[in-house]
Amino acid sequence: MEFDLQGYLKVRRTMVEDALNTLLPVESERPQKLNEAIRYSVLAPGKRLRPTLVIAAAEALGKAAEMVMPVACALECIHVFSLIHDDLPCMDNDDYRRGRLTNHKVYGEAMALLAGDALLALAFELVAANPCSVPLDCVVRTIHIIARASGTRGMVGGQVVDMESQGREVSEETLFYIHEHKTGALILGSVEAGAVMAGASQPELEALRVYGRQIGLAFQIADDILDVVGDEARIGKPVGSDQERDKATYPRLFGLEKSREMAHFHVQQALSALGPFGQGADPLRAIASYIVERDL
Amino acid sequence: MEFDLQGYLKVRRTMVEDALNTLLPVESERPQKLNEAIRYSVLAPGKRLRPTLVIAAAEALGKAAEMVMPVACALECIHVFSLIHDDLPCMDNDDYRRGRLTNHKVYGEAMALLAGDALLALAFELVAANPCSVPLDCVVRTIHIIARASGTRGMVGGQVVDMESQGREVSEETLFYIHEHKTGALILGSVEAGAVMAGASQPELEALRVYGRQIGLAFQIADDILDVVGDEARIGKPVGSDQERDKATYPRLFGLEKSREMAHFHVQQALSALGPFGQGADPLRAIASYIVERDL
Repeated sequence: MEFDLQGYLKVRRTMVEDALNTLLPVESERPQKLNEAIRYSVLAPGKRLRPTLVIAAAEALGKAAEMVMPVACALECIHVFSLIHDDLPCMDNDDYRRGRLTNHKVYGEAMALLAGDALLALAFELVAANPCSVPLDCVVRTIHIIARASGTRGMVGGQVVDMESQGREVSEETLFYIHEHKTGALILGSVEAGAVMAGASQPELEALRVYGRQIGLAFQIADDILDVVGDEARIGKPVGSDQERDKATYPRLFGLEKSREMAHFHVQQALSALGPFGQGADPLRAIASYIVERDL
Repeated sequence: MEFDLQGYLKVRRTMVEDALNTLLPVESERPQKLNEAIRYSVLAPGKRLRPTLVIAAAEALGKAAEMVMPVACALECIHVFSLIHDDLPCMDNDDYRRGRLTNHKVYGEAMALLAGDALLALAFELVAANPCSVPLDCVVRTIHIIARASGTRGMVGGQVVDMESQGREVSEETLFYIHEHKTGALILGSVEAGAVMAGASQPELEALRVYGRQIGLAFQIADDILDVVGDEARIGKPVGSDQERDKATYPRLFGLEKSREMAHFHVQQALSALGPFGQGADPLRAIASYIVERDL
């Protein structure tokens, strides 16, 4: 019987959104506007890919979603923090995100800046609170993984090089750096965090790292392709916005056909890494395949 | 014999700056500009009050500075992250900080935004790396303390209410909220973090919390007073800049004389809380007294 990915994603998404709703600061408490701004962006409809990866990695190791829920929420907080800051006028200056006005368009630049800052801090607060009493060495390693994946050697580093590359010819190596860091680092970090919280053995962790790295690359290539061929309603932003900004993308450097091949290649690598895992890893397998099945 | 505070501060400041120099990402590594921007602001001359408080709290409990050095550096990273974002055009729009051009004036707004973001992530990476093998429950509790002190219920929350209050009459309660959160939370968090890393007992931790809270309040009142009566070279920003921005301050609400009394009152409370501690707490005592001796 085939694995029902859509059903799986829906259940996990609802679990994550319920948990976020509970864990986020409430609008009735001071500072109200900030809490409102935070909730506005985090609770906007989203795929919840990163938290779902945290959960799916833990499930592949036989652990329940509940055990990693605070870490799953933390990864979503970090993702949304990056979106809010990315949309600011001094960055991409976007008016819409996930089909709604961007945070700064509703709450102003200063509030959006601070909402993003607060979300990054909240992520670490959620993990360190450790309500499920996961062994402390797992918690500390997870915090280290998440922090590193977010900073200069992770997501923020990728954003900087992406920004510096706009309007310039970039080498293959630079494009790879951008993709591996800007999107890849947090996707890999999600898989690693779920695995470490679930008490992965060293070989299990290494296999899941290969998986995380490969789907991160596939995901970003797929995103680049969708920016060229996708449909606006599905991707939630105007088609061609990367081209307009003269951003470094795979289709631009390699053409569409070769880019599609590369995305499939990375997904195959990801699936191979899951070889030793049993049925528990079916969600991870289905997620990997889904990345390149999204109308590329 | 009187405690030589200036000598103490100088030695600790040098230790912290040496450690920061080692722990910060280097300019020779990608992303170079980001790493340069980070080092520019963090290594600018500063008092290093927060890291010194981390160290002094640990020393009051008989532990060596080295044991808490990564946490001390983390607190400085968080402080500098807040300064960089605070100076941005959408916030205070300041051109100078610590006598040098602000980060965004040198590196541009986008880079300054990302340098701040990266510093917040780095803070947690430094603590979680735990190179001194401090017991893991202390590390996790410290991360929780620092994260909470930085976010909606801490520093960022205070910044938001401060921003919302500009140009308005504020109540005593709101002014207190702003001061307790905007500056107080991270000063208290520094003392708590140092104490927890040093393995403080519950009564020790509670006493040091009172100390941290009281000096946080005293410090912010003193800062407000210096903005009115201080000398520009010493405070590193133009005298009267709070008034100009119509910011909520103690002198504005209570007048100068009453504000001075309140600052002294909080320092006395801080000193009383240190009653049970021996000579090891002399640095904490001297720091508290110094806060209200800065030409108020």
